[in-house]
Amino acid sequence: MPRHLVNRPLRRHSMTSSPTSDLPTVLDIRAAAERLLGVAVRTPLLEAPLLNAQIGGRLLIKAEPLQRTGSFKFRGAYNRISLIPQAARSNGVVAFSSGNHAQGVAAAAGIMGLPATVVMPSDAPAIKRANTEALGAKVVLYDRHRDDRDAIGAEIANRAGATVVRPYDDPGIIAGQGTVGLEIAEQVKALGVRPDAVLVCCGGGGLVSGTALALAETLPGVPVWCVEPEQFDDTRRSLQAGRRQANPSDARSICDALLSPTPGILTFELNRRLLAGGLAVSDDDARNAMRASFEHFKLVVEPGGAVAIAAALSGKFPTAGQTIVAVASGGNVDPAMFRQVLSG
Amino acid sequence: MPRHLVNRPLRRHSMTSSPTSDLPTVLDIRAAAERLLGVAVRTPLLEAPLLNAQIGGRLLIKAEPLQRTGSFKFRGAYNRISLIPQAARSNGVVAFSSGNHAQGVAAAAGIMGLPATVVMPSDAPAIKRANTEALGAKVVLYDRHRDDRDAIGAEIANRAGATVVRPYDDPGIIAGQGTVGLEIAEQVKALGVRPDAVLVCCGGGGLVSGTALALAETLPGVPVWCVEPEQFDDTRRSLQAGRRQANPSDARSICDALLSPTPGILTFELNRRLLAGGLAVSDDDARNAMRASFEHFKLVVEPGGAVAIAAALSGKFPTAGQTIVAVASGGNVDPAMFRQVLSG
Repeated sequence: MPRHLVNRPLRRHSMTSSPTSDLPTVLDIRAAAERLLGVAVRTPLLEAPLLNAQIGGRLLIKAEPLQRTGSFKFRGAYNRISLIPQAARSNGVVAFSSGNHAQGVAAAAGIMGLPATVVMPSDAPAIKRANTEALGAKVVLYDRHRDDRDAIGAEIANRAGATVVRPYDDPGIIAGQGTVGLEIAEQVKALGVRPDAVLVCCGGGGLVSGTALALAETLPGVPVWCVEPEQFDDTRRSLQAGRRQANPSDARSICDALLSPTPGILTFELNRRLLAGGLAVSDDDARNAMRASFEHFKLVVEPGGAVAIAAALSGKFPTAGQTIVAVASGGNVDPAMFRQVLSG
Repeated sequence: MPRHLVNRPLRRHSMTSSPTSDLPTVLDIRAAAERLLGVAVRTPLLEAPLLNAQIGGRLLIKAEPLQRTGSFKFRGAYNRISLIPQAARSNGVVAFSSGNHAQGVAAAAGIMGLPATVVMPSDAPAIKRANTEALGAKVVLYDRHRDDRDAIGAEIANRAGATVVRPYDDPGIIAGQGTVGLEIAEQVKALGVRPDAVLVCCGGGGLVSGTALALAETLPGVPVWCVEPEQFDDTRRSLQAGRRQANPSDARSICDALLSPTPGILTFELNRRLLAGGLAVSDDDARNAMRASFEHFKLVVEPGGAVAIAAALSGKFPTAGQTIVAVASGGNVDPAMFRQVLSG
């Protein structure tokens, strides 16, 4: 059979491609799931009957705070780094992040034995810097106000021949995050349940696009919604407008994991096709969801990780008589913030 | 074959038996596991590479805060109530507890459709009373200083013909809690690991005795240790003395789930035979373990639920080069207490 007739839905990973040809498929997600088997945690789907009674529906929480490094980010990082050709591996990887992506890349590179450099703002929380270093990565600090982060990263990548591991706008990252969707489908089927909706938080859109891609095949017809902080609802507005919208530069939120300026190119291309719509919640909604997660699920959830739960608990997404899956995406929150949230 | 020659290791549940003949066996635990399938949560075994690096060993946490009602108590309550003969079921159950056992009994009775009464001190935390009622149980309050709790319970049981569900000293309860041990064995085998020790908290001893009984068959030779609060180390001292010892009446601890006055009769008979020994930790050790569980496992653990982790992290049990399983038994802690613990 001539090679171009091999049944392969979309061409991928081309260096000179349009966004569409770079889009991952569910086959990439299945391949990612095989790579992650025994390496990533197959996180449980949690349920609290008393909370269900309060909302008059059934809420199932996909508990990614229990993932390695405390967030879903490990999935995409490990999958993306696995795709680096052997010849380029010893040159290592470089990532920009002060948060969950940094720890995911550091842990994944550490497991595979690749050197990792993380470019981090000098005012990043000490605990996140310490964790990233403890996971084996070299941390390079830059001044948010004075230095050009991208230039620093590009210089490191060029000098060392390192591979840049982007936080969301990369097919390998999206495919890794999509394993959350495969697991949700398997887990609700094991429960004998068909959810009425799946709610997923959204920063750059890697998690929600990958999850929606997996669910389009494994739970066809189940609507997937993205949930964002009120002032960072760029994907919600972009879905309405049909093209990528930016957030205002003065936008603020406690949801530090979700503060991307615009949707990604690849992630929006997928989300545009796959999502039912977007929802926005307030910081207080997120705080309430963190308290409910403490009380009912005994789970530590960070502000950005709680917005999907918040959409269900705040009534911004209807729950009466419905079965809803909400992804809790991470739990990397400082004790001081958590104490403040618990004080209500 | 004459009936008395049927191969049955120990006679059980006799009304006029000595303690030994009442002891559950691993067969009872396997039967409990079948009853709990799809009803109880198969809680995950959690691990944190950065914490492992700190202790120079490998620590695996059995995460019972993720169990239905937030603690392991649901397992024993559900199994024990399942054993009530059909004819007695409509008379319901009665339990004495202000805490985790109350919620376990209320939830289990609710699922099986039995009426449940919980006798609770009038100064019990409002949240625990509210949860017990929300789970469908009738709460009867008594005055700790004025009323005779046992007399109140006995009167309810006699009047209604209700079955008293004891918190630990009952073969059906011990067998239910023992399912924790079966799961640990299956989960470490799936990881390809043989632990060097298993650490389990101990109040009345139902959880540790059941777990040790399961592990004696499924991981023979792996030592199981009980862990208690310093001033409530009755089982540790009883193991040393060879007979049941009491705690001083003025003993105090923040580990409210573990404040039993003496070991149970059945539980001590098992623990005497099965445990490698006992360990005691301070309230500060428990607080440190709660903080570590927050940071590394994103898990809410109550003080009494954290003592096994505390034994490993405090150095009271050696961890260097060792693989240790520690059971985190519950996560029902008030926000105010949790905030205070996080403030360090």
